[in-house]
Amino acid sequence: MSTARETIGIGMVGHAFMGAVHSHAWRNVHRFFPVAPIPRLAALGGRDEARAKAAAERFGWAAVETDWRALIARDDVDLVDICTPGDTHAEIAIAALEAGKHVLCEKPLANTLAEAEAMTTAAEKARENGVRSMVAFNYRRVPALAHARKLVASGALGRIRHVRTVYLQDWLSSSDSPMSWRLDKDKAGSGALGDLGAHIVDATQFVTGETVTGVSALTETFVGERPDGSGGTGQVTVDDCALFLGRLSGGGVASFEATRYALGRKNSMRLEVNGSKASLAFDSESMNELSWFDGGDPVTEAGFRRILVTEPAHPYLAAWWPPGHLLGYEHTFTHEIADLLTALGEGRDPAPSFADGLGVQRVLDAAGRSAAGQSRWTTTEGN
Amino acid sequence: MSTARETIGIGMVGHAFMGAVHSHAWRNVHRFFPVAPIPRLAALGGRDEARAKAAAERFGWAAVETDWRALIARDDVDLVDICTPGDTHAEIAIAALEAGKHVLCEKPLANTLAEAEAMTTAAEKARENGVRSMVAFNYRRVPALAHARKLVASGALGRIRHVRTVYLQDWLSSSDSPMSWRLDKDKAGSGALGDLGAHIVDATQFVTGETVTGVSALTETFVGERPDGSGGTGQVTVDDCALFLGRLSGGGVASFEATRYALGRKNSMRLEVNGSKASLAFDSESMNELSWFDGGDPVTEAGFRRILVTEPAHPYLAAWWPPGHLLGYEHTFTHEIADLLTALGEGRDPAPSFADGLGVQRVLDAAGRSAAGQSRWTTTEGN
Amino acid sequence: MSTARETIGIGMVGHAFMGAVHSHAWRNVHRFFPVAPIPRLAALGGRDEARAKAAAERFGWAAVETDWRALIARDDVDLVDICTPGDTHAEIAIAALEAGKHVLCEKPLANTLAEAEAMTTAAEKARENGVRSMVAFNYRRVPALAHARKLVASGALGRIRHVRTVYLQDWLSSSDSPMSWRLDKDKAGSGALGDLGAHIVDATQFVTGETVTGVSALTETFVGERPDGSGGTGQVTVDDCALFLGRLSGGGVASFEATRYALGRKNSMRLEVNGSKASLAFDSESMNELSWFDGGDPVTEAGFRRILVTEPAHPYLAAWWPPGHLLGYEHTFTHEIADLLTALGEGRDPAPSFADGLGVQRVLDAAGRSAAGQSRWTTTEGN
Amino acid sequence: MSTARETIGIGMVGHAFMGAVHSHAWRNVHRFFPVAPIPRLAALGGRDEARAKAAAERFGWAAVETDWRALIARDDVDLVDICTPGDTHAEIAIAALEAGKHVLCEKPLANTLAEAEAMTTAAEKARENGVRSMVAFNYRRVPALAHARKLVASGALGRIRHVRTVYLQDWLSSSDSPMSWRLDKDKAGSGALGDLGAHIVDATQFVTGETVTGVSALTETFVGERPDGSGGTGQVTVDDCALFLGRLSGGGVASFEATRYALGRKNSMRLEVNGSKASLAFDSESMNELSWFDGGDPVTEAGFRRILVTEPAHPYLAAWWPPGHLLGYEHTFTHEIADLLTALGEGRDPAPSFADGLGVQRVLDAAGRSAAGQSRWTTTEGN
Repeated sequence: MSTARETIGIGMVGHAFMGAVHSHAWRNVHRFFPVAPIPRLAALGGRDEARAKAAAERFGWAAVETDWRALIARDDVDLVDICTPGDTHAEIAIAALEAGKHVLCEKPLANTLAEAEAMTTAAEKARENGVRSMVAFNYRRVPALAHARKLVASGALGRIRHVRTVYLQDWLSSSDSPMSWRLDKDKAGSGALGDLGAHIVDATQFVTGETVTGVSALTETFVGERPDGSGGTGQVTVDDCALFLGRLSGGGVASFEATRYALGRKNSMRLEVNGSKASLAFDSESMNELSWFDGGDPVTEAGFRRILVTEPAHPYLAAWWPPGHLLGYEHTFTHEIADLLTALGEGRDPAPSFADGLGVQRVLDAAGRSAAGQSRWTTTEGN
Repeated sequence: MSTARETIGIGMVGHAFMGAVHSHAWRNVHRFFPVAPIPRLAALGGRDEARAKAAAERFGWAAVETDWRALIARDDVDLVDICTPGDTHAEIAIAALEAGKHVLCEKPLANTLAEAEAMTTAAEKARENGVRSMVAFNYRRVPALAHARKLVASGALGRIRHVRTVYLQDWLSSSDSPMSWRLDKDKAGSGALGDLGAHIVDATQFVTGETVTGVSALTETFVGERPDGSGGTGQVTVDDCALFLGRLSGGGVASFEATRYALGRKNSMRLEVNGSKASLAFDSESMNELSWFDGGDPVTEAGFRRILVTEPAHPYLAAWWPPGHLLGYEHTFTHEIADLLTALGEGRDPAPSFADGLGVQRVLDAAGRSAAGQSRWTTTEGN
Repeated sequence: MSTARETIGIGMVGHAFMGAVHSHAWRNVHRFFPVAPIPRLAALGGRDEARAKAAAERFGWAAVETDWRALIARDDVDLVDICTPGDTHAEIAIAALEAGKHVLCEKPLANTLAEAEAMTTAAEKARENGVRSMVAFNYRRVPALAHARKLVASGALGRIRHVRTVYLQDWLSSSDSPMSWRLDKDKAGSGALGDLGAHIVDATQFVTGETVTGVSALTETFVGERPDGSGGTGQVTVDDCALFLGRLSGGGVASFEATRYALGRKNSMRLEVNGSKASLAFDSESMNELSWFDGGDPVTEAGFRRILVTEPAHPYLAAWWPPGHLLGYEHTFTHEIADLLTALGEGRDPAPSFADGLGVQRVLDAAGRSAAGQSRWTTTEGN
Repeated sequence: MSTARETIGIGMVGHAFMGAVHSHAWRNVHRFFPVAPIPRLAALGGRDEARAKAAAERFGWAAVETDWRALIARDDVDLVDICTPGDTHAEIAIAALEAGKHVLCEKPLANTLAEAEAMTTAAEKARENGVRSMVAFNYRRVPALAHARKLVASGALGRIRHVRTVYLQDWLSSSDSPMSWRLDKDKAGSGALGDLGAHIVDATQFVTGETVTGVSALTETFVGERPDGSGGTGQVTVDDCALFLGRLSGGGVASFEATRYALGRKNSMRLEVNGSKASLAFDSESMNELSWFDGGDPVTEAGFRRILVTEPAHPYLAAWWPPGHLLGYEHTFTHEIADLLTALGEGRDPAPSFADGLGVQRVLDAAGRSAAGQSRWTTTEGN
């Protein structure tokens, strides 16, 4: 069978958890969405050749490169997808953009504010040459949250009074859980703050359409040493949890919590927004649902509605199954890549941009500084 | 990249809803499960050539056939996947089995008991020649229900006292909803009874490991005429809902309801099992969860647990994402096909067999006869 | 402090569970509702004098009688409240009515259809003399169900298609649970059918405003002998569970289940009604909530609403606390008695009448006959 | 009927919302709990004689006093129950204690830290003479929270890592809602902070058995002027919401939010505690339930349990109804008064003491100072 649809060559760096889920999206996106161009899985980048080859075969990539610079340089690579830890994002992304390749970069945009700023500058410069970039905040592509954004944008909530958002995991609850690169500040930049906090800050700014203008924060490391898997122990150099209060540009207030010690909460990213006219609530452990309270309902029939976000009229859903048939985690990446390819095909910038990612980084940076400074109020300059 | 894994050629008949979801599973199963052989999407069958070609391109099939007999005859087709309405199942399945092709057949197995019996006979004969068959009750592959089966089989529930199961949809709630082949007895065999009832009968027999030995039933057609889309009306010749009570081979009792008029319930397949030691409950609208009550818990800490069925130790989950990251509807088909291919690779019969499908059909048939006969108790002979 | 409000003397027979909760309602009703007359707790009837006296002191009754005939005969008793097992209802109620005393009778109205008919005849005769009677189906006074009735009566649900209702308890789940008068047919009349089934039949007829015109039923006794508490065993002579299907006078269908073996369900009386325009659902384990689906909501914002039935505009709520503050089980009895006293004060008949109780009894009787007769369809003559 | 049980004379000041619910508890406590002494409702204090008399008749008080000093002075008053706004608590409580009357004081203990300290000093002095005092944090008497405390105290949660607690109401969501004494700093001391924040701070310290050692806070007034009901507007001089982060004496962290702008949340006091071994969660809108996650459960059967806190073995429940029958809001006051009377009868100090109330006040005071000082970390000296 032949196809008239144009193609685009993808080079992806990194093949762990994020690499697996991105690969699935690249392979399947055009089976469900009428994207143009259609992705070709050109090359997979990984330092260990044997492991990279095994991953390429498993995930469906045509070639492997052990040096990401070589991957960027390939003629058959038009877009570079960065799925590596945060300490490498800036270098790879800037090089790719300078080489004229579009970039999709996993979140958080970078481990430091300086890197995020350099990346944003590079993205804006590349943009002048039609080279586009996007940061991969996949929760924006959960249909329930995309619909929440539409509801806020329509004015249905009125003035935003409150946002309360948490990202709760529990994989560090036991003091016996082993060290990991995610607990090493050099690799990960921060702990729960950057890994989980980035998602809830982005979700807050995305859903409300407002920015976080300042914060007061507290971080804590509950367990300072953990088994390193070889009989010794390793130092945990990042935060185990981060809590912060914030103000929104529209006059509302917000609270944020990111932790890996909420025993029993496996992957619970929750967001509640209270407006003057309506409220909404979301929990990623029930990601096909949106809770919705319409202040205009008759008082005797008012209550939070459990909207099953599976109707064809809901964002992304027309591509999938009949009402009541659920979507899963990886669909958010398929949606993300559908949006990216559609933007490329239409000659538009995809969202969220590196500037959006920088906006998140500014909040995380302010939180880190506040936590280090007696929780004093810290503004997020630039936001 | 080359692969040493053996392949198997798939020919699929039908390319509507079920065809789309089966195609997705055939394309991706080996990316997540270590199946051998690996499927090749050899040929897609569809009567309208243009539509079949469009579907083949979209879903990734290498060729199309407009005659299912030609599809069965192809040398590159080793397994025939039947995704057509129930009135065609028997003819295609029996022909495929006689041609030495393995068969995967969508549920319900057939529209009549006689057809189901003929298919089962053909399957058992083909089996002697190493030709294998399976009926596609995908709910068995929902991890929560697969885990429920394990819990019952382990003895954790003790004696089964009650099963209460419903399959609720609402797409006919309005009298204005149009006619469809699903409302035409000649095509569909029955209405909610066969379409939805088949799932809950199979789920009951699968999870409990028991059979339904007899039933008392009631069916109803609420709206007898519906707009036919061309200005006229069409006669609804099937049931709109079917309710039946049953007894289980182990001494317990069960209730069943299938309807398309449960306004607000989009696709709610629910199953609750009460045993002498524990209880479990499931709802497909929250399909990543299993409710579990352990009668052995201290009375002050006992309560239904909301198990998020997303742990690596849960059925099928090791292939997917970290705990707390949800799966969707189509995963059940990927699991089904993974189980089928694994059985083929290991030279075992896959489950559920056509005989299992026939066992479901006997219950549906008894329900139909009871409903037609003053709800009188009707045994399901053979079960 | 003096009060100008008229009083009414109450005589209550029985002082176990129902006696305790009725006493609480009689003592407190006028503190919250502007009823007239105000109840005086005149006399408590109980066969064992010592136990009756202890109960009277604890519950606040002014006198005791060991013979219910003497209690009826007292000049200071204007109304007789019957809280004894079902086998005594007919005799006491008829005698009280003939003595010109108003009667409140616990459900089920009687253990047999013949007794219920005699009671209804007596009630209708007494009514000509201004003597009034009411049967105590307290679930009608759960604010959520009273509100459900209002919604149906307003036409908001459109045509009723489905009722599905269950009453699940688990106190017999273990085979070691001891014998009780509730398991003895002579005392209790039936098991789960009359005790629990009476509630869900009444709730169905009350909420829908329709009657159950016929049923097909199945009953089962899972454990035939139980320890009698003195080293021996007693025969269980009633049903452990009863399941039945029914048709409603308006053309809809219904399912009913009553059981004491639903492990983990402590007192779960559930009712779901699906109409052509809206649906509602209730569970007594969350009795301050009503689930409500409005088919008129925009499809993207439609979902079951969790209405907290605690607004002043909800039935009975203006008498209690601010929104969001919950009511409990005994409030339903306070409401029941407030309605009764208000009707007496206004010279109206209270509801539900003995005739309503008889209507429930006819359904239970038909269910019993169907279960004994191969589940054959059995009409509820008179309904 | 006579009773041998000793009695105690109660004088209550204030007869609005809190007066109504306290009266109900005083009237009924001995009908359910074997308390000694038994309360006599001696006198009700209220400035407007006509309104006080009406309330006394409605609630069952034997006399009225228009001057609280006269009420304290009555010989038939042994215990003074203070149900007035916070600005009057100190004066009344101190006078009552000095007059040798036991005191029950509604929360918050006082409007200022200085008053709370003076009250605590007075209480400690009175205690030397056998005069006892208690502050009325009724949420401690919600069975689910009392059980939560027992679970933490038993060590079942291990080390406490996180507390997250909110108290959400919505009665100010509309800018049109009128002024009230609760929005006037002179009367109310503070807004959501003192009214709602006091409950969640006490609940945190009660359930964990730890103290909040410091906080960082933010407060906001969204709507500065509101209609005064007479055509003009009134100035809102208190906070509309208060959010704060805290640290616990055992090393954990906590977050607090109190607001009257959470549209759709009528009275949602929520508390989640994550320990190293188990987690628990509570929501007052489902106050008969406790969520419980036991980290020791097998990973495939672990999940938050919905414990229905209605078993006889649960705190306070043996006095009430069978399992699965719910309690309501006012039961918490009946429990509170049962505990108070039992302590008096046994010659013990009831809890929580004024010192406990002062401990809460210190946290609220620190939060107020932090909010006024750039959210800087503020320790709660004395805690």
